[in-house]
Amino acid sequence: MNKQTSIQIIGGGNVATHIHRALDGKYSVALVSSRSFDGFDPSADVIIISVKDDAIAGVARKIKSMLPKNSANIVAHTSGSKPISILDCFEDKAGVFYPLQTFSKEKELEYSKIPFFIEGNSEETANVLSEIARSASESVHEMDSDQRLKLHLASVFVCNFVNHLFGIGSDILRDCGMKLEYMGPLIKETVEKALANPSPHDVQTGPARRGDSNVMDTHIDILKREYPPLYAKIYETISQSIADKAK
Amino acid sequence: MNKQTSIQIIGGGNVATHIHRALDGKYSVALVSSRSFDGFDPSADVIIISVKDDAIAGVARKIKSMLPKNSANIVAHTSGSKPISILDCFEDKAGVFYPLQTFSKEKELEYSKIPFFIEGNSEETANVLSEIARSASESVHEMDSDQRLKLHLASVFVCNFVNHLFGIGSDILRDCGMKLEYMGPLIKETVEKALANPSPHDVQTGPARRGDSNVMDTHIDILKREYPPLYAKIYETISQSIADKAK
Repeated sequence: MNKQTSIQIIGGGNVATHIHRALDGKYSVALVSSRSFDGFDPSADVIIISVKDDAIAGVARKIKSMLPKNSANIVAHTSGSKPISILDCFEDKAGVFYPLQTFSKEKELEYSKIPFFIEGNSEETANVLSEIARSASESVHEMDSDQRLKLHLASVFVCNFVNHLFGIGSDILRDCGMKLEYMGPLIKETVEKALANPSPHDVQTGPARRGDSNVMDTHIDILKREYPPLYAKIYETISQSIADKAK
Repeated sequence: MNKQTSIQIIGGGNVATHIHRALDGKYSVALVSSRSFDGFDPSADVIIISVKDDAIAGVARKIKSMLPKNSANIVAHTSGSKPISILDCFEDKAGVFYPLQTFSKEKELEYSKIPFFIEGNSEETANVLSEIARSASESVHEMDSDQRLKLHLASVFVCNFVNHLFGIGSDILRDCGMKLEYMGPLIKETVEKALANPSPHDVQTGPARRGDSNVMDTHIDILKREYPPLYAKIYETISQSIADKAK
């Protein structure tokens, strides 16, 4: 692997854009549209498919059809939830190159801290992909497809779902003339505490943890009266789950 | 208000301990047990009741019985969800002194960044409590009981419930041999994005936002097979709410 190693990233979304930025200058990297395949180079050493989960299989077939027989390119996808087997047509050259982060195109990121999870259908493929990931990040791990699926599921809870709760909090605060920013110190302390403890369940606080049904009833009344019905349902379900854990 | 101003904090929990630390040295502050009332000084200028929500009314009655008639002490509680009216027996000297933070006794905190929400049954009472809060914090706001209840409700979503989701994420990660720490960069980026945007809903990502039912079904299968039933219910309820918002 050196500056002459050529990497083609197929896709145009947030993940493709950031992988391009993270690897640019370290290898000969090009971003190729998954629609037109304009400028696609069938001799690229590594082809990284970074498209929506449901589009991976189709793009893989398209690439397979454009590669010469017995070609030696490594082909990897960047999905947390799709198994490596979706690329089985590339045999021992198939792999996964999954960066665990929430990406937006505009935002600069410190790539060295982003964990990359690598899988390969052969040791050599895994090694090549790991080496590429290590050129961008200090945190590179091999992980099989079953574990990666769980990792992705966990990330849905701690990233996507947490963001939705921030959204609900923000809706409620707006109604009393406040911004989520006021909660910045509280949110940051919550995150620090959770990360510093063996299990966040051990540092759970709040009315559900205390079993304070007066406060919970008051909260649920407000939610039912003034907010979408699912907000009250989320409140009740998470409170019940917190109470169960506390038993 | 000066160093001779005497403040008695009634209680022994996390909030009482931290308010004592935040004000100590600035005023003559003493922590008084809400059980024994050992060392209680009926001539204190300000009495802060920092006990569990359900115990406030009882402690207030006890204090009232120990104060001379026509005494001029200010009496405030520190609850997010209880209204000021619970202290109506102190007439225009009743107030609220609510710090918005999650406290644990062991942990040091930067008090200057913690927002304090103040209410008083008279302008003078509100002014005195605000001045005391400003001695500890740069962020002091007057807020009435209805708004404070909503503020507290919002904090349950963004602090208590978010911590529970971190706990669920941590449970799932442990089963693939990983720690929540790996998710540190992802969690911090999620928080920064949410705080930097007018509404966190605008930066929502993930399978529910994309309507990716294949991935969601796979996730729910894992949850139903291997985790407490409420985990799957939380997944389904929040996903539905995210989908509704995206419409």
